Amino acid sequence: MRSHYCGQVDESLVDQEIELCGWVNRRRDHGGVIFVDLRDREGLVQVVFDPDKPEIFALAERVRNEYVLKVKGKVRLRDEAVINANLKSGKIELLGLELEVLNAAETPPFQLDDQGVHEDNRLKYRYIDLRRDEMQQRMRMRSQVSGFIRRYMEDNGFLDIETPMLTKATPEGARDYLVPSRTHQGEFFALPQSPQIFKQLLMMSGMDRYYQIVRCFRDEDLRADRQPEFTQIDIETSFMNEDQVMEITETMIRDLFAYVLEVALPNPFPRMTYAEAMDRFGSDKPDLRIDMELVDIGDLMEDVEFKVFSGPAKDPKGRLIVLRVPQGAKLSRKEIDGYTEFVGRYGAKGLAWIKVNDVDAGREGLQSPIVKFLPDEALDEIIKRSGTQTGDLLFFGAGNANVVNESMGALRVQLGHDLDLVSREWKPLWVVDFPMFEWNERDERWNALHHPFTAPSGSLEELEANPGESLSRAYDMVLNGCELGGGSVRIHDTAMQHKVFEILGISDEEANEKFGFLLEALKYGCPPHAGLAFGLDRMVMLMTGASSIRDVMAFPKTQTAACLLTDAPSEVSAAQLKELNIRIRKPVTEA
Amino acid sequence: MRSHYCGQVDESLVDQEIELCGWVNRRRDHGGVIFVDLRDREGLVQVVFDPDKPEIFALAERVRNEYVLKVKGKVRLRDEAVINANLKSGKIELLGLELEVLNAAETPPFQLDDQGVHEDNRLKYRYIDLRRDEMQQRMRMRSQVSGFIRRYMEDNGFLDIETPMLTKATPEGARDYLVPSRTHQGEFFALPQSPQIFKQLLMMSGMDRYYQIVRCFRDEDLRADRQPEFTQIDIETSFMNEDQVMEITETMIRDLFAYVLEVALPNPFPRMTYAEAMDRFGSDKPDLRIDMELVDIGDLMEDVEFKVFSGPAKDPKGRLIVLRVPQGAKLSRKEIDGYTEFVGRYGAKGLAWIKVNDVDAGREGLQSPIVKFLPDEALDEIIKRSGTQTGDLLFFGAGNANVVNESMGALRVQLGHDLDLVSREWKPLWVVDFPMFEWNERDERWNALHHPFTAPSGSLEELEANPGESLSRAYDMVLNGCELGGGSVRIHDTAMQHKVFEILGISDEEANEKFGFLLEALKYGCPPHAGLAFGLDRMVMLMTGASSIRDVMAFPKTQTAACLLTDAPSEVSAAQLKELNIRIRKPVTEA
Repeated sequence: MRSHYCGQVDESLVDQEIELCGWVNRRRDHGGVIFVDLRDREGLVQVVFDPDKPEIFALAERVRNEYVLKVKGKVRLRDEAVINANLKSGKIELLGLELEVLNAAETPPFQLDDQGVHEDNRLKYRYIDLRRDEMQQRMRMRSQVSGFIRRYMEDNGFLDIETPMLTKATPEGARDYLVPSRTHQGEFFALPQSPQIFKQLLMMSGMDRYYQIVRCFRDEDLRADRQPEFTQIDIETSFMNEDQVMEITETMIRDLFAYVLEVALPNPFPRMTYAEAMDRFGSDKPDLRIDMELVDIGDLMEDVEFKVFSGPAKDPKGRLIVLRVPQGAKLSRKEIDGYTEFVGRYGAKGLAWIKVNDVDAGREGLQSPIVKFLPDEALDEIIKRSGTQTGDLLFFGAGNANVVNESMGALRVQLGHDLDLVSREWKPLWVVDFPMFEWNERDERWNALHHPFTAPSGSLEELEANPGESLSRAYDMVLNGCELGGGSVRIHDTAMQHKVFEILGISDEEANEKFGFLLEALKYGCPPHAGLAFGLDRMVMLMTGASSIRDVMAFPKTQTAACLLTDAPSEVSAAQLKELNIRIRKPVTEA
Repeated sequence: MRSHYCGQVDESLVDQEIELCGWVNRRRDHGGVIFVDLRDREGLVQVVFDPDKPEIFALAERVRNEYVLKVKGKVRLRDEAVINANLKSGKIELLGLELEVLNAAETPPFQLDDQGVHEDNRLKYRYIDLRRDEMQQRMRMRSQVSGFIRRYMEDNGFLDIETPMLTKATPEGARDYLVPSRTHQGEFFALPQSPQIFKQLLMMSGMDRYYQIVRCFRDEDLRADRQPEFTQIDIETSFMNEDQVMEITETMIRDLFAYVLEVALPNPFPRMTYAEAMDRFGSDKPDLRIDMELVDIGDLMEDVEFKVFSGPAKDPKGRLIVLRVPQGAKLSRKEIDGYTEFVGRYGAKGLAWIKVNDVDAGREGLQSPIVKFLPDEALDEIIKRSGTQTGDLLFFGAGNANVVNESMGALRVQLGHDLDLVSREWKPLWVVDFPMFEWNERDERWNALHHPFTAPSGSLEELEANPGESLSRAYDMVLNGCELGGGSVRIHDTAMQHKVFEILGISDEEANEKFGFLLEALKYGCPPHAGLAFGLDRMVMLMTGASSIRDVMAFPKTQTAACLLTDAPSEVSAAQLKELNIRIRKPVTEA
């Protein structure tokens, strides 16, 4: 219906007659003529309707915002004075010669340029929200990202193989979405939390290199950046070790950023062990844009009177660290109280601090309720180790190591954002050498840090002898403090797989019921294999600078897992339930 | 771990040392040496182990079929006498220098070259079935097909946009798979039968050109070529009419066949109206490879005594046709009885026939129980119209037009296959000008022939005046008697959409409950739009020559919608059901 997109019209087309289709972004009357900004996916162009074509002029007078128009017109240069340098089409305008209203529009529930629309309203009228330039750009970048990744994968010999959505409960640990079976009554499918087992089976099928961009599902209580359905870039290879998988996927991400964002990521990405990441940043996904670190000072405090410090310093499960906040001495008492409350959410009992008003003035230059408890040598050494300068603030984390890591790691990031200490860079890294297991205090058993198919670095004997010290062959790619993706070398040996299940306290019966087919498959010639999965939503969120994954999904759900646009979920008929042989347990009272 | 794939090794590598990984396809001892055919995704290579390396030789003696090996060896030419022209690596072999058994394998439940394995066994041990060359080729072609289509779409400015899987019941008419919501108890999501409404909403969102290769779900009783989950190539565009959509998608398919199969499809595809397709082939997806047609002879029979013919000839809802079967006179009485039974399945009451033993001998040359009822002129005209020659057989279809079309259309295809009358060609076509509605005798109301969002060819007034005669702006792409895809121009006008719902007997209340958001969206500037969806599974099935879509899916389900590999669906815990606020209606007795 058109010869060009609105956003493609520029001065190269001057004096040509062209046809455009699009939406009325704005209409205004000025000096006896009508100006219509016509909008399509590619941009805006200004169309002018003169009164000397009375019929068209009359029609143009009736159009309103979001009317859908077809316009035929002649491109002409704008006067110098009204050139709009922000628009590709800003040097020209279209003199309207023919006009057809393809569809009228009622006044939209909100204006497209209104930045303050409540998210519920944006979700309910998503088809209007998505017309906004910002959302158009995000959807387009998402499409570019997945297109680029597919091409990269295919160019590297990866086969796109689809795995089932109606499947068996997966072992990822989160809650499954269930689908009642009609033909096998009383039984249920589960929607996949990931295609983990299927991709391993594809390696056993000799597919060698597999990838898929695939929907996954978790029925969790939603946090800010979670959705019940999300998209994973799923990758698995045979006969590759961790270095090879990391190289091929790292190159993909580097090429992707160069292609889509014209950003040069470091080559290679730095690698950091899990232990170092926890030590220095209190996190296994450190944000390296923030130049602050957790500095251990336990050795200085074992013998001080101040129990808050000496206790953790002496406790093998304790940790005592200092976090230097550059120019943090300017923080008010109220702000410090706020951070104390912040770390409290992670279980920290308090937040000791020292303001360094003059680093050369010794004890006199330090302002703090706790300085009096600390010996001079310790204070000097703290200042030295942390590289403290005049005007800085020192925060202290003391207590159980896990709590210190979590709370002070989170505080570090929070301070980074609050004090504008986050550099404008892309900081990727690999985190490696994860523990195989973590001890679950409550249930008094080992949990898998990744998933139970992750291979250990050592032998079966070493694993058995000391599960708590065993490292895994897992690797996470972290970017700016977010986990972009993670993976591992998998177990390809039956005995090892049984041993891991045993350590995890999964009985033979349970293992057979849940993963019997996988254990069976391991017997018939399973190749060494390894893989990785990226979260596409979060990747695109980072790349677009959006603040929520909802903003990079066309039709996301709310935090209660509802779709405000279609009103899903909704009630279904009694007949449908009967066919499925299920019933609602308790009548739900109207809210 | 390797330097090459097995299937890539050829005489260009002679004298080089290479490393391979793969599976033992076959091991045999011959003349004191051990031959191992090593297999990977790319093919086979023969590895020779000499006894003069006793350690490796001993290890090689222990390997069995499907062991996973890593071999280092030297490429050397084979003796002329043992060159295998069927293998890319058939001129060379690898002298094994180092051997590592990466994994052992128990004897597989079936041999890879056994063609007679029961499908249940193939599905249960899918990871072994998929190692077979045939299945490897199919999976690879499927990946090529979707990769090609994505590139074509992206090169043409289509954005890949993901739509939800957890959504509201769709109006496609089949049964939905339901997913109970935990956070909104008593309510359910439905898995999409297609993203139809979402893709229309994306057009209203200004996305202009959308595509997605997307999983869809139908909880139907499965026929031979249906699966509960299947994959659709989903396409939608704004500001395009049917000709433009047909052109862009036809070019895609033509390019695809050229690229993947090196087949030149006709340019352009022929177009045929629905009416012509039914008249000539009794089907809206005619298989044009078969050179037989349904020829109307009602006008010849209105006045004959033979009621079986004159009845339908005079009935406005009746039809009387002849189907000439080239060289069909050789069919036995038993075979003809078989075809009589065949058409009976479609509701035909009988199957009259004439064997034409000598086309020049008049009545004497015709062998048939019905010839005596038919006048000479009619017989002459039948022979003339149908182009009958000596040795042919004529079958007659008489009765209700729908029954005649369905039964004789099916018989035509069946005869084509039975008598080897199907040409070795690719015969695509477009079927157009479908009726908007078909009359549902049982419920005494109109059904939509496509779906209720399909635009009619005429005006609202014409539609209202005569729904039964109204044609739609729908189009189906047919290939070799299979519907590859179908689509339509959609309704973009609120009044028209309401009218179609009204004709379909969908009340305002029902329309609002099910599609209220769509009707609402139509108000705010909906562009003219049109689209199409292809069935990827069937497309790949046709392209690979597989006889079932199960053979082009990695992990298909059985005809009772079960996965024999993972044993899904399966029972879930009472706690899970309680969390979802549902219970099993009646206890299921053990089978």
